[in-house]
Amino acid sequence: MSQGIKVNSRVLEMEYAVRGPIPHRAVEMAAQGRRIIPCNIGNPQALGQQPISFYRQVLSLLEDPGAITRERKFRGDGIADALPEDVIDIAAAMLDGSRTGSGAYTESAGFKFIREAVAGFIDSRDGIASGRPTASDPDSILLTDGASGGAVYVLEALISCPQDGILVPIPQYPLYSATITRCGGVLVGYHPDEEAGWALGRENLEQPLKAAAADGVEVKAIVVINPGNPTGALLDRQSMHEVVDVAREWGLAIIADEVYQENTYGQEWCSFASIIGDEPIPLFSLHSVSKGFYGECGHRGGYMEVRHAPSVVGTNLDLRDIFVKQASVNLCPNTMGQFLVHLMVTGPREGSETHRVFLEQKARVLDDLQAKASMIRGYFDQMDGVECFGRTGAMYLFPRLGRLPEGKTDFDYCMALLEQTGLVTVNGAGLGQAPGTHHLRIAFLPPFELIEEVMPEWVRFHNGFG
Amino acid sequence: MSQGIKVNSRVLEMEYAVRGPIPHRAVEMAAQGRRIIPCNIGNPQALGQQPISFYRQVLSLLEDPGAITRERKFRGDGIADALPEDVIDIAAAMLDGSRTGSGAYTESAGFKFIREAVAGFIDSRDGIASGRPTASDPDSILLTDGASGGAVYVLEALISCPQDGILVPIPQYPLYSATITRCGGVLVGYHPDEEAGWALGRENLEQPLKAAAADGVEVKAIVVINPGNPTGALLDRQSMHEVVDVAREWGLAIIADEVYQENTYGQEWCSFASIIGDEPIPLFSLHSVSKGFYGECGHRGGYMEVRHAPSVVGTNLDLRDIFVKQASVNLCPNTMGQFLVHLMVTGPREGSETHRVFLEQKARVLDDLQAKASMIRGYFDQMDGVECFGRTGAMYLFPRLGRLPEGKTDFDYCMALLEQTGLVTVNGAGLGQAPGTHHLRIAFLPPFELIEEVMPEWVRFHNGFG
Repeated sequence: MSQGIKVNSRVLEMEYAVRGPIPHRAVEMAAQGRRIIPCNIGNPQALGQQPISFYRQVLSLLEDPGAITRERKFRGDGIADALPEDVIDIAAAMLDGSRTGSGAYTESAGFKFIREAVAGFIDSRDGIASGRPTASDPDSILLTDGASGGAVYVLEALISCPQDGILVPIPQYPLYSATITRCGGVLVGYHPDEEAGWALGRENLEQPLKAAAADGVEVKAIVVINPGNPTGALLDRQSMHEVVDVAREWGLAIIADEVYQENTYGQEWCSFASIIGDEPIPLFSLHSVSKGFYGECGHRGGYMEVRHAPSVVGTNLDLRDIFVKQASVNLCPNTMGQFLVHLMVTGPREGSETHRVFLEQKARVLDDLQAKASMIRGYFDQMDGVECFGRTGAMYLFPRLGRLPEGKTDFDYCMALLEQTGLVTVNGAGLGQAPGTHHLRIAFLPPFELIEEVMPEWVRFHNGFG
Repeated sequence: MSQGIKVNSRVLEMEYAVRGPIPHRAVEMAAQGRRIIPCNIGNPQALGQQPISFYRQVLSLLEDPGAITRERKFRGDGIADALPEDVIDIAAAMLDGSRTGSGAYTESAGFKFIREAVAGFIDSRDGIASGRPTASDPDSILLTDGASGGAVYVLEALISCPQDGILVPIPQYPLYSATITRCGGVLVGYHPDEEAGWALGRENLEQPLKAAAADGVEVKAIVVINPGNPTGALLDRQSMHEVVDVAREWGLAIIADEVYQENTYGQEWCSFASIIGDEPIPLFSLHSVSKGFYGECGHRGGYMEVRHAPSVVGTNLDLRDIFVKQASVNLCPNTMGQFLVHLMVTGPREGSETHRVFLEQKARVLDDLQAKASMIRGYFDQMDGVECFGRTGAMYLFPRLGRLPEGKTDFDYCMALLEQTGLVTVNGAGLGQAPGTHHLRIAFLPPFELIEEVMPEWVRFHNGFG
């Protein structure tokens, strides 16, 4: 083997721009003691965002079952700093619901009591009375290690030959391109209309479907990320209806990546499940504990809800059975991530002091994100040719950089921006963009003061780039 | 899509016997209120094994960073039941080492300070002075979600075409067969010598390699599970040398699944890393927090150490770079699992009261497992034709059932055993076995008294089966 080994070409070809050469250079610069402002990853707690106390107090009690008895005793003894009673009660109830706590494998799809809580959350979020046909079913929910886990199951199952395609927005989150490459399918890109705020018309979706069909590619599903990543843009209702209409007419499943559903900054958001309703269009919707106001990326908690699961040709199974089998090979999602999903979909009891603090912390995080986004957008106005379209959602802005000097790419731009200011961003080519355009993605997560400090430097850099 | 959907045939064909029809029937029986003794999965804490207090106390403090200050104050105030000072110090040092705690994505390969601790553990376990060429390198270690994560990366990377083969023991842990099927490679089985305690001679390994070569299959790696799963057998040193010799001569990498390295019950065990030493044979060794005396399956913590990583043909990369890229698509392993890996490879400070309790709990778990294994083996002697080979390791026994009545399979046997006694086992055909033989795998994890109660029933069942 001294001459080297041949590696699966599909694994070799996978690209993952978010952690590519630019962040690599940033690590080197940080090692030299230079200031780095990492805006390349949606990783809030690495940038100073504080965790929600309620979540962590409950998780802490779940890790050490002895702590529940101990905290009860502290309260009985009137010790100041004992944890609030409702926090202890919630932890105790969860431990009870789990039966086996954090240390045992769970069902491959995750704890049943948590899947029930997720179903209740979805029904209440979407305003659907439980028991109606459109009510969410705990047996159609899989808890996963982050939302990525669910996306990977769907793509691995759906891509059955090299002519199978997945319709993916351009730009897109590289999880999709990397996994489609690894599974050996075809990424069929569709281009939302940037200048219309990344909206979708019928033509944006049908043009690539027709081109794919002409090439002999069978498109099996469409990915929609709402709010968008990397665009950060909130999709309007009309665009969502276009997606559903096209899915119906072309026989596509919908993969709805809805992990930023809490990052909407006061604007209306609705789920694809509520748009589809009773219609038998297969839907895989993804959510996670990593984003929103929780930002618990490290815990790798998430879920996938499957609706209108199609039956599998040549078997008596439906697609949910396949997903559970896939999950069973990895045994189960991590338990602490599962518990955090439970907390995300339930929260503290209304009216308690715990609830008051929770709402305060939640508002602080979301208000801060909104303020940073709008401050950054303000500085874009001072940069020659820069435009940023769409209603702010998620944790990202995806400005169009305008015309770059002859021979320069957005990769060159982002690398130079890093060298000059310490700002780490992701260049548009790594995420996909319309030919001839140049963009970058910036996550608006570092502390307000730090962003405020660097923005004038970026303005100077931009206006002098060339 | 109402006519059903075509699913990736390789995903469809994956089989995962450990969670197949037998456990499914057990769930039904439990729902009817019948006694079930689940011996089908190595899931200790689901069967009453208590977690190690030290691990959980530290994890609890890591989940709620506020708890560290609080516990320090409790100690200062002289409050009984405050956590021990060394536990608090260890948690504080880990939080410090991590910088970002449990809530942020880490490096794709996992926290650096934990990879350093793992490297130190390996060197000390294998008696290798750090700095020597054979010393472990933190940059060659990937933290993973359980050991499965690492195995999947290796198989996905190595299987590059349908003629690529992986040499796998028969019987085997179905993670390997399922993943090889999904990756579209060839499982080339080798048969350890059951009656010699599952030892390996040159012939056991070379015969299937020659047959594979004659079929045009290029075998790229050999999987060895030591102690074995499902056999539970400890491999002798001579067998390990045979594996290394064959790997050298045939240009194979070695995938050493060493997750049961603590489950050796007083017998000598050594790692493949220590056998290979400086020889440039690629080695991927796997370990996890799920087994041993910790049994923390639900936390999904593990690591893979890569040694002598081959370079990748046509690139300037080596295989470690590929693994890190694969890991980056899923962002990072879950943080609590990573922290638990740290605790597994370090442990409490020697000499402390915490350490004394830790050793006591460790011994209790391992002694109990050993007692249960030897009790079960004793009952096998009363079963007509049953023989169980090999030195007891891991958490499993894999008895050969002798001649079954005409037309009956070991699946029939295990299903009937379940119906009659409530014992849930995995039948040999689901794990692989020599043609014409019948086995089952039993995990010796339920409480001693429960196993003791059911064993005479099993003896009666066995001697009357037909």
